[in-house]
Amino acid sequence: MKVKLASSYGFCFGVKRAIKIAEEYKNSATMGPLIHNTNEIDRLKNDYNVGLYNSLDEVKDNDTIIIRTHGIPKFDLKNLKAKDAKVINATCPFVTTPQQIVKKMSAEEYSIVIFGDKDHPEVLGVQSYAKDQDDVFVILEPEDLNNIKFKYSKIATIAQTTKKKEKYLEIVNTLIPKNKEVRVFNTICDATFENQDAARELSKEVDIMIVIGGKNSSNTKQLLNISKENCIDSYLLEDERELDPKWFKNKKLCGITAGASTPDWVIQKVVNQVEAY
Amino acid sequence: MKVKLASSYGFCFGVKRAIKIAEEYKNSATMGPLIHNTNEIDRLKNDYNVGLYNSLDEVKDNDTIIIRTHGIPKFDLKNLKAKDAKVINATCPFVTTPQQIVKKMSAEEYSIVIFGDKDHPEVLGVQSYAKDQDDVFVILEPEDLNNIKFKYSKIATIAQTTKKKEKYLEIVNTLIPKNKEVRVFNTICDATFENQDAARELSKEVDIMIVIGGKNSSNTKQLLNISKENCIDSYLLEDERELDPKWFKNKKLCGITAGASTPDWVIQKVVNQVEAY
Repeated sequence: MKVKLASSYGFCFGVKRAIKIAEEYKNSATMGPLIHNTNEIDRLKNDYNVGLYNSLDEVKDNDTIIIRTHGIPKFDLKNLKAKDAKVINATCPFVTTPQQIVKKMSAEEYSIVIFGDKDHPEVLGVQSYAKDQDDVFVILEPEDLNNIKFKYSKIATIAQTTKKKEKYLEIVNTLIPKNKEVRVFNTICDATFENQDAARELSKEVDIMIVIGGKNSSNTKQLLNISKENCIDSYLLEDERELDPKWFKNKKLCGITAGASTPDWVIQKVVNQVEAY
Repeated sequence: MKVKLASSYGFCFGVKRAIKIAEEYKNSATMGPLIHNTNEIDRLKNDYNVGLYNSLDEVKDNDTIIIRTHGIPKFDLKNLKAKDAKVINATCPFVTTPQQIVKKMSAEEYSIVIFGDKDHPEVLGVQSYAKDQDDVFVILEPEDLNNIKFKYSKIATIAQTTKKKEKYLEIVNTLIPKNKEVRVFNTICDATFENQDAARELSKEVDIMIVIGGKNSSNTKQLLNISKENCIDSYLLEDERELDPKWFKNKKLCGITAGASTPDWVIQKVVNQVEAY
């Protein structure tokens, strides 16, 4: 089976940076999964003894705690800093930006709209920076705005870094006619765009698309959705063990892309396996 | 001929206010046409001796000068105030708002995009409030943004009060993906929306549409365009003298609307004439 890789795929700047930080701090622990990729988290555990805490209660004195790329809520950070632990911040700078925007806009009396998944750690972190938690709204669809009563006629809006820009524009377009001022911050990450555009192009020319990434990764799921628009035989998998030879029957060209949290060594194993079919 | 008036038409708040001001200041002169309606300007001249100046050079000592609803450029205002004349400001408050927004945003180092007609007096006035005239861009189409080099990555955008919101959103949608922050001020006037929505509805149910207003009035021309979308037999006229009986042959119901600068007494004459057919 012939394989063609997307012109842009895999690790983004923030993930590369976080992994480098984790490798520098052996015997530390991350607060929440560092990135959305269990294979890489296992590698960091095995090769660098970087552990994983899921709650502040697990933090012990003298621990070195690495804050995940998605960031953590403001109050968790405050509580963590109050403990007798060393705190290393691996929050992606592109996530720190919307956190600071929400803080500033909220202080300047803008109502806040966040386009994102309300349970996503990045969104929970960003949302926590609003002064007034009753005037920050996390939505996914323009219709979600219908029953919202904003405190102010000035709205500031930001998007989860991995969301689709088209939907963000739909939300913005719904906000503008109803409000005096809408301050639109383009917080969607370019790396996400680039991987998405490349997946779109590649999926048009192949018989089968493989998207490699975490099943709970927002940007990976979007790569799958984009691929499916052009190539019905698109599959999401975390590593080469999930490949099924049956998928490749009567296919000639296999496109491969990977989410922003997928390490190159995982991608390479998938490529090798598919080429062997 | 049966006539049906749009549910909303004619004079807006700013025009009513300006005419009231002009009637209060008999023997004054307006700087530029007070509103875009020659019939009303003639009435103010005949009944209140309100004259019309087209240039600052015409201003004489002790004149009372009324600033038109569309406003005038900042420097003209400054020069006017330096003369020995009494200045009465009839600029519509909805036009003063974008003037002040441009002034503030420009001072805060935002590049400015104005959606509007570059020769329209309102736009010339609003534009003049930018600190840096090389970093304020007046455009009509999203494509007009293609070759613009903004000074900043933060853009503030405002619209001429009488423009269509749909096109404004297209422009905003083109700006957002390319800039870090787009501050969208919804400066399109509600009165314009209301007259437009009413014209849209009415034009669907009539055989012929008459739009009454100034031939150089932006909002009147838009009412005509909207009417034409649903009713091919739509006509723009300034007063009843332009009516042509031939238009009404084999027609049953005539819809009538009027631009924001059209006085009721002009509308009534048209209604009477059409009903007589």
